[in-house]
Amino acid sequence: MKLFEQKFRDSMKSDVMLLDQIMTYIVRRKGKQLRPMFVFLTAGVCGTINESTYRGAALIELLHTASLVHDDVVDDSDYRRGFFSVNALWKNKIAVLVGDYLLARGLSLSLENGDFDLLSIGNKAVRDLSEGELLQMEKARRLDISEAVYYEIIRQKTASLISACCAMGARSANAPADMIETARLFGEKVGIAFQIKDDLFDYGTAEVGKPLGIDIKEKKMTLPLIYALNKAASGDKRRVINTIKNHSDEPKRVNEVIDFVKSSGGIEYAARAMEDYVRQAQTLLKTLPESVYRTSLQGLVEYTIAREK
Amino acid sequence: MKLFEQKFRDSMKSDVMLLDQIMTYIVRRKGKQLRPMFVFLTAGVCGTINESTYRGAALIELLHTASLVHDDVVDDSDYRRGFFSVNALWKNKIAVLVGDYLLARGLSLSLENGDFDLLSIGNKAVRDLSEGELLQMEKARRLDISEAVYYEIIRQKTASLISACCAMGARSANAPADMIETARLFGEKVGIAFQIKDDLFDYGTAEVGKPLGIDIKEKKMTLPLIYALNKAASGDKRRVINTIKNHSDEPKRVNEVIDFVKSSGGIEYAARAMEDYVRQAQTLLKTLPESVYRTSLQGLVEYTIAREK
Repeated sequence: MKLFEQKFRDSMKSDVMLLDQIMTYIVRRKGKQLRPMFVFLTAGVCGTINESTYRGAALIELLHTASLVHDDVVDDSDYRRGFFSVNALWKNKIAVLVGDYLLARGLSLSLENGDFDLLSIGNKAVRDLSEGELLQMEKARRLDISEAVYYEIIRQKTASLISACCAMGARSANAPADMIETARLFGEKVGIAFQIKDDLFDYGTAEVGKPLGIDIKEKKMTLPLIYALNKAASGDKRRVINTIKNHSDEPKRVNEVIDFVKSSGGIEYAARAMEDYVRQAQTLLKTLPESVYRTSLQGLVEYTIAREK
Repeated sequence: MKLFEQKFRDSMKSDVMLLDQIMTYIVRRKGKQLRPMFVFLTAGVCGTINESTYRGAALIELLHTASLVHDDVVDDSDYRRGFFSVNALWKNKIAVLVGDYLLARGLSLSLENGDFDLLSIGNKAVRDLSEGELLQMEKARRLDISEAVYYEIIRQKTASLISACCAMGARSANAPADMIETARLFGEKVGIAFQIKDDLFDYGTAEVGKPLGIDIKEKKMTLPLIYALNKAASGDKRRVINTIKNHSDEPKRVNEVIDFVKSSGGIEYAARAMEDYVRQAQTLLKTLPESVYRTSLQGLVEYTIAREK
C-alpha cells in the first residue's frame, strides 16, 4: 500500500499550480483505501501481483476520487443552506473540472501502458455509477418502493466500483476468464452488502450516535424503509409516504419515519439481507485457490459489515 | 453529416428514462457541429473517410457535449443571481452525472472498436481542456496580463479540441505520422483564431449588437484587454485594473473598460492576431494534397473568422 500511494501521488502531479494544490489536498484527505486493497488482494488470490496491478489500483482510485469530487458539487452547496457565494461558485466549477481532469489522468495511465482490458472494466464502472445515480434521482422523485429497483440502484451505484476492483485485480494477474467473472461477482456481492451497511448507518449505530435521517430528508428509498412500507397497513403507508413527500425537511417528522421503520423491523430485515450477501460473497471466494491473500480478503469482507462508521 | 447524426443519436441511448430524456434534449439542441465537420474533412484530405472516422466524430462530439453540460453547472446557477432552489440543485447534480455518463459513453465506443489511437487523441484533449479552464481560473484571480499566458490558456481550452478533431480525422484515414501532425497543428491554429474571434464578440458586432462585457465581468483577461493594458500609461493601467478587480459587477464601470480597450486599438490588434493565425493555418493546409475536401476545409476556416455570432 505504501508503494501504491507513492505511485498514486506521482500520477496526480500537474504543472498548473492551482491543480497541483488541489491534488495534494485530495491525496492528503484520502480515505480507507478499501478499493485499492480489493484490487491487490484479488490479484494475489488469482495469480501474481505485478506492475499492471498497481496501475489498475491507481486507475480505480482515480475514478473513485473523481466521483467523490463530483459528488462534492452538490453537497458543498447544500451545506450553505440554499445560498451561493462567488466562492461557492468557484468551488463548484473547480470540482467539476478537477473531476474531469482525474478521469482523464486515469485514462492516460491506462492508455499509455496498453491496459485496455483494465480500462474497459473501469469504464463500465463509471457508466454504471452515473447511470445508477441518475436512476436513483428518477426514482426518488416518485418515491418508488420496490426492492428490485433498490437493488438495481445500489448494484450500479456502489457495487459496480467494488466489482470492478476485483475484476481488475484478477485481470491484472492474468487469471482465466471464468476466474475473472467469479472475482467480479464476488465484488458485486460485497459491494451490495457494503451499501446496505451504509444505508443502515442512517438509522444510527453506537459510533455514529443518534439517527441521521439524511436519506429520508433526501427522499432516498433504502431497504429498511422499503421493507417497512411494503409491510405496513395501507393507512400507515399513505401517512408515512405523505410525510416523506411533504415534510422531509422537518426533523420531528423525519424522526417519526425513523421510529416507524424501527418498530416495523426494517433494521433487522436489512441486516439479514446484508448478511445474506456477505455469505454469498464468502461462498464465491471459497471457490478460488487458498492463500494468505484469500484469508485477508475474507477479513476485509468481515470488516465491511462490522465497521461502525 | 446526416448519417453521422443518426449514428450519434444511437450512441446516446440509455435504459434509464431520465437519462434518455436528457439525451434526446441534448441531441435536439445541437449546435453548428463544426467539430465533426473538421473530423470528416480532414479525413477526406488525408485519405478515405471510413467507419472509424464516424466513430472519431462521435467520440469528439460526445466529449464536446460533456464539456458543455459540465459548463452548464455554473452558468445555470449564475443565472439565478446567487440563489439556489432545490430544482437548481437537482440540475447541477444531474449535469455533472450526465457529463460523466457522456464521457463514459465516448470511451465505450472507442474501446469496443479498438480505436485506441483515436481515444488517446481525445483523452489528451479532455486533459488539456480541464487544465486550461483551471489555468484560466488561477490567472483570473491575479489578473495576469501576459499574452503568453493568454495563448497558453486558449491553446488548452479551445484549440485542443479542434486540433484533436483534425488529428483524429487524419488518423482515422490511416495517414502517416507527419501528416497527422500537420493536421493537428492546422487544427490548433484554427482553434486559436476561433477563440480570439469569440473573445472579440464580447466587444460587440453587427449581429451580437452592443458589447456584452461578460468576460470583463468574470475577470477573464482576453487579448484586446491585455494589449490595451500593456500599452497604457501606468496610471491608466492601475485605474482599469482596479475597476476590473473591484467594480466588475457595475455595468457602467464595465462599459468604461470596454471604451478604454476600443480607444487603445485593442480590437484591431486582436483582429490582426486572429488573421495571422488563420494565415498560418491556411499555409499548413496547402502542404496537404489538393482535393474537394481541402477546398471545403479552407472555406470552413474562412467561416470561422467571418461568422457574426
